[in-house]
Formats: sequence, C-alpha cells, structure tokens
Amino acid sequence: MWKKREVRILKGNIISSRSRTELEICENSYLVCEDGKAEGIYRTLPFRLGGYPIRDFGDCLIIPGLVDLHTHAPQYSFRGTAMDLELLDWLEVHTFPEEIKYGDMEYAGKAYEIFAERMQKSAVTRACIFATIHRPATMMLMDLMEKSGLVTMVGKVNMDRNAPEGLCEGTEDSLAETEAWLKEAAGRRYVNTTPILTPRFVPSCTDRLMEGLGELQKKYSLPVQSHLSENPEETAWVKELCPWSEFYGDAYDHFGLFGRECPTIMAHCVYSGEEEIRRMKENGVFIAHCPESNMNVSSGIAPVKQYLDEGLQVGLGSDVAAGSTENLFAAMAHAVRASKIRWRIQDDRRKPLTMEEVFYMATRGGGAFFGKVGSFEPGYEFDAVVLDDSRLSGPREMNARDRLERVIYLGDEREVRAKYVRGKELFF
Amino acid sequence: MWKKREVRILKGNIISSRSRTELEICENSYLVCEDGKAEGIYRTLPFRLGGYPIRDFGDCLIIPGLVDLHTHAPQYSFRGTAMDLELLDWLEVHTFPEEIKYGDMEYAGKAYEIFAERMQKSAVTRACIFATIHRPATMMLMDLMEKSGLVTMVGKVNMDRNAPEGLCEGTEDSLAETEAWLKEAAGRRYVNTTPILTPRFVPSCTDRLMEGLGELQKKYSLPVQSHLSENPEETAWVKELCPWSEFYGDAYDHFGLFGRECPTIMAHCVYSGEEEIRRMKENGVFIAHCPESNMNVSSGIAPVKQYLDEGLQVGLGSDVAAGSTENLFAAMAHAVRASKIRWRIQDDRRKPLTMEEVFYMATRGGGAFFGKVGSFEPGYEFDAVVLDDSRLSGPREMNARDRLERVIYLGDEREVRAKYVRGKELFF
Repeated sequence: MWKKREVRILKGNIISSRSRTELEICENSYLVCEDGKAEGIYRTLPFRLGGYPIRDFGDCLIIPGLVDLHTHAPQYSFRGTAMDLELLDWLEVHTFPEEIKYGDMEYAGKAYEIFAERMQKSAVTRACIFATIHRPATMMLMDLMEKSGLVTMVGKVNMDRNAPEGLCEGTEDSLAETEAWLKEAAGRRYVNTTPILTPRFVPSCTDRLMEGLGELQKKYSLPVQSHLSENPEETAWVKELCPWSEFYGDAYDHFGLFGRECPTIMAHCVYSGEEEIRRMKENGVFIAHCPESNMNVSSGIAPVKQYLDEGLQVGLGSDVAAGSTENLFAAMAHAVRASKIRWRIQDDRRKPLTMEEVFYMATRGGGAFFGKVGSFEPGYEFDAVVLDDSRLSGPREMNARDRLERVIYLGDEREVRAKYVRGKELFF
Repeated sequence: MWKKREVRILKGNIISSRSRTELEICENSYLVCEDGKAEGIYRTLPFRLGGYPIRDFGDCLIIPGLVDLHTHAPQYSFRGTAMDLELLDWLEVHTFPEEIKYGDMEYAGKAYEIFAERMQKSAVTRACIFATIHRPATMMLMDLMEKSGLVTMVGKVNMDRNAPEGLCEGTEDSLAETEAWLKEAAGRRYVNTTPILTPRFVPSCTDRLMEGLGELQKKYSLPVQSHLSENPEETAWVKELCPWSEFYGDAYDHFGLFGRECPTIMAHCVYSGEEEIRRMKENGVFIAHCPESNMNVSSGIAPVKQYLDEGLQVGLGSDVAAGSTENLFAAMAHAVRASKIRWRIQDDRRKPLTMEEVFYMATRGGGAFFGKVGSFEPGYEFDAVVLDDSRLSGPREMNARDRLERVIYLGDEREVRAKYVRGKELFF
C-alpha cells in the first residue's frame, strides 16, 4: 500500500558535526526531514520538494538535538547545592537521603514533573536517566518522559549493599522488582521511552545482584548504564569489594554488564587504567564524560582527549546533581575548560579539547548510543533544535561557527526556539 | 542645618558575609538603609523606625551587591567566542583587532551600550573596568556607566609597545592623552564614575611610559589596575623585557604602581612566586581572581586559598572576554570548581574554596577596594541586590544558605528583582 511521505522543511543556518574535528556548516539552507529521518541539506530546494511548506527560521541556527548520556532525575531537586563533599561522602550525606524520598509518590510527582519540564525546554532531545530504586516512582518518571516527547532510556536503580535503610534492597527483591518493572514498562507500550538496566555502581551491588542483573540483561536484551572509576577512594574500595576483579570495569564485565553483550554506558572514567581503557574499547563501551560533576565533587579530570584519540565512544553527561544543570551547552564549555586545565597542570601530551570536539560528543558521540542519531546525514533520525541567539548578539558580525561557540558558552533554554524529535515538533 | 534622614527599609531573607568563612543570615528580617549607608538588620523593627515605608520582598534573598574587580568592556562584543588560544596569541589574534575598532565611535557606542545595559541588569553593583587606548570611546563608556547607576572605576588603557598599529601609542602621546582624559573626566563631575590608571600590562608598556604613569598617579592620586603573572610565557617575557626587575610585580612597584603609593588591583596572579606574594601583602595590593578566564585561556589555577590564608586582599573578576560572562555568580562557582581541581591534581596542601569564601570574595573581598562596601554592617555603603529564586525552586524546602548556593551555581540576571546602589534603587 502506498503511504504519503511526511516531509518537513526547515530553513536556517544549519550546523552539525561532520567528524570529531570538523563542523558541517550550511548557512541559509534547507534542512529536509522525511518520515522522521534526515533526508538532506540544500542550498536550493530541489524541484521534487517543491510544494511542501517551509518553516523559515530566518537567521537562527539549527543543530542536531543534544544527547545527555548521564543524569539522575531524583537529584534535580537539589541541583546547585551541597557542593562541599567528595563523591562517597556526598552520596551518603546529600544524595541518598534525597533519593529515599522517592518512595513517596507525592514528592516524586512534584520533583519529576519539574525535571521533565526542564528537560523538555532544554536543547536536549535524548537522555539516559537514573531514577531511584523505587518501581512506582520510576514508572511515573517514565510516563512523564514519554509525555515530554524526548527519547529517553530510564533505569530503576539497583542497590543491595552500602546504602542506608530505605534505599537498600534485598538482593532477590531487587531482582524481582526489576523484572516486575520491566514487565510494567513493556505494558505501557511507550513510543520514546525504554528501560535501561541500572546497577548504581559496584559498591552498591553485591556479586549475586550483578549476576542476577546479567541474567535479566540476557533475558530481555537490555542496555546497561552505571558508573566507573570516578574517584580514587571509590576505585580503591571496588578493589577491596571485588578482589577477584582485574580492574573496576572487570567487575561489570564479569557479569556481562560491560558492553560485550549489550550497549553499555559508563559514566566518568576519570581513573581508568590502560587495561580498563583497552577493555572498554574492545567491548564498545560508551563513556559519559561529565566534566562539571567531576569538578564539583573534586573527582578530577578524565583523559577524554585520549579516549577520542584511541577511538573510544564518548558522549557528554550533565550528571545532575553532581553537575548543577541539565543545560548541555554548559557541559560542553566545562569539557573544554577542564581539558585545558588538564593540559596545563596534569598532562601536556594531549592538547585541550576543541569546540568542534565537544559539539561532536554532545551530538554524534552520545547519539550513537541511540542508533543513527546526532547528525543530519541522510538516514539519521531527525532530532533538531532551532536556536535564536539574538539575546547574545552584539555589534560584531559573526559567522555561524562563532555563534555556535557563543551559544555553547552562554546559551541555555532561552535560545531554544523550536525543537524536533524523530521528526515531530515538540510544543512547550 | 538639620537635614531630613533618608530611610529605606527592605524586608526579606538577608544574607551577607560575616567573615571569610562565615555567613550572616537573617531570615525574614528588616534591612535598614539610612542616607545611603547600611544602618542595621532587625528581626523586629525598632520603634524609632516606625512610619517609614517598608518594601516587603517576601521570600526573596537580599545580598550585598557583587563587585567585579576586573573586566574589559570592549571585549564584551566577542564574549563566548575565540576560546582556542593561550593568552599572548589570544591577545594578538582575537583581542587587539577587536579593540582597534573602538577608534570608531559608532562601533564603540553600539558595543558599550550593550555592555552597560548588561552590567546594569546583573547582580553587580561595582566594577573596575578596562576600556581601550581611545580617549573619546573611554569617555563615552564612562558616560554610559554613570548613566547605569553602578559605581565603577574605568581606565583608558596605556600601550606603547608590542601592539599592532592602531593600538600602539607613542609614549609621550599616551601620557598626554591620559592627562587629557583625566581632565575631561574631572570636568564631567560624575557621581559614581572615577578614572583608574590602566597600564595594560608590562609587555605593552615601556619603562618610560610606566615612569610617566607613576608621575600622573602621584599628581592626581589615582588608583591603578593591571595584569600580573597570568601565564608562564607572559611571565617569562616580562623577565626579558625588564631584566632589572626582581619579579613581575616589581616591574610595577619600581614605578610606584603596585599598591604602595596607591590602591592597586592586579588581575590573575596565577604564577606569583613567594617574593611577589610577600610584596603584594606588604603593599596591600588587591588580587582580582578570574577563574573562568584562567581556564579559558589555559593559564592555570591561581592559589587563591593561599592568598586568603596569608591575609591578602582578594576579590573576583569576570575578566570578560577571556571570561565569557559578566555574571559574577558564575565566577563564584568557577572559583570553587577550579580550587577543587587544584586541590586534586596540583597541590593538596590547601583545601578547596568554600561557597562562603567565594561569596566573601565577591562582596567584602572586592568591595574593600571601594571603601566600606560589600557588607550590611552599619556604616557600609548600601549596595543591595534582591534575588527572586523561584525559577530555581523545587519540591524541597531549602534554607537561605542553600538557596544562595543554588543561585551561585545557577543564577543570572533573571533572579535580580531589585537592585540598590549607594542607597538608590536602580530601575531598568
């Protein structure tokens, strides 16, 4: 049966990432979306596309939607506060007490609505999100994210050790709840929202829990997200907890939760050694680089340039609330700054990250975890953000590249004039 | 003759810096201003203040106006761009070509109007500002800053070497223009705007020029601002240019431009050695810490904790356009983050800066350069900013201290609900 093509045409200054080091800039051009996929970019619209309505965004910039590979929805409620401690103390003093509250659906509802609304208004179109251990609140978050129009992977968190009462599950309970959650989520028939297995991190998960999660992964073919080698104390602790592991990441790999069997995101990787790096590369693990978080909880600065040089998969994460904001432009600017400081005071063998590289990570780099996402190359899923940067403009004529850089340093949701996800416009 | 007292009473959650390590928080209290000076803070208004109108800001936060000790007005036009180079190349490639344009009054007018407007809308009430070498444009900037209602010190820049044509003055011309500028400024009878001597930095100023500026300083009793020990290459260059100097700062001190004879601000001080630090302390030099700039142009991270521990005078600077924004809240958050990274990867003998310390630097620390400024203690000049942080609020009850921290990480001009400078409300 013949189906009418659904065609959208946007006009503006189109910028995307051609490669890690190169932008593709098409000023004053037409961006065509067909049936939810990018079809092409044209200076002059070809004859066969005549007759379709054109949405002319004038001098706006049009970029691929940004991808947040790592954030914690329940922590949004205390973002921008509690910046006084290192990771493990920060978890115990600030984070776990907050996450316990998500056993209360009224609190969770208020908090998650704000999170979903702010994510919707941002330039992010895709995100991988930690919830808490609580199944009902996680389902509520998934409902809200589905309603937001963003494409997200959301994880009910698993924790069965080293957690306070109210946030520590029994091992079998944790597995049973996870399976119940997966069935409930499947029953919702979401279009844009999928579950992702989410063992919090090795210190919170016994070997038996990890083993069970590995089995669930196989049974349901699930992607996985967790934390890796974020902080020196944490990394040393994992060595104690899993003396049998070759390195931190091996404690996931051992249970089939480290990329080999399933698409996997590991957040941070500040202290990954050569072996761990090699394993991540072999297994195709995605690294979520979270530069603001790594500064705020005094973790350090990840060797991202090295990861890129060695061809690993790297995206960016806001890591709210160790990161203060869902604004992924800020994450890009932080990534550049952090890499400059790393070059200056830690290791000058690798040059700082460029604007082109952080834009690549925030679009194609993270987008690859979702498939063909993060680019306007034909066949890519059509996520686009239209940016009106007139609030930032001045007396100086500026080319599209410099305007994009300015948005990276200074832009936020105020610049988002329109947003498209999988070809559909979001209204908010 | 008896003059009627002018009394203002604001109500809200009043936060100021009691000391470097301690906040003074008076929730739901009255802040009284009398004849442009802070008079007191009261839980219950005393009888003698009855009858004066009260401006009730409900649940808003009220803080002292912020002080930006170092920024470049002509660079505002390219803020958030050109973040690809280290200091000296950045000056040559990006900054000097932009500053040359301020020979054109039409361009300067457009650019400076935007700068003045954005400064007015920000939470900053006091600033020390670099203009360019151009006298007419500098006068125009001073007119605009006066109109803004902020209290500012503005400097016509001096440069007579190592600058491109169009930005390099003859030595005697530079001195004559400076004196003409001082006379012109005096003729304007500004209330809030004063000139500050501004040799750009040692590489741009010959010894003869410095000598002449030292004479002008004495003749007109002027304060001084410049740059110091920002970048390793720059610091090495100064050693070559002034082989007679004991250290970089000595090349200012030699000419009476380093705090001993006059209030002096030196921006950056990332690479100050022990001798330079001692001299700054002896001379009462103010350090303008510019953390974002120091990251953006890959300079490094200044040992601010040490400066505070040793009792030096330290304030914060946005350093636009090596810093991307006039938003001094962002500078505070950058200062905390940078200090954490310094602690983690460079020198763990000094702990990271706290929120209390960066707030101190942004208010009292920098305020001291302007006299009794940056506090609500009785007798201090009354600069106050009222912050409505409802945009940032969530499901969680938060005390005033945590709300202030959240504004530091996430706030900008949108949170500024009202602003008072020397007791007068600004309207914008």
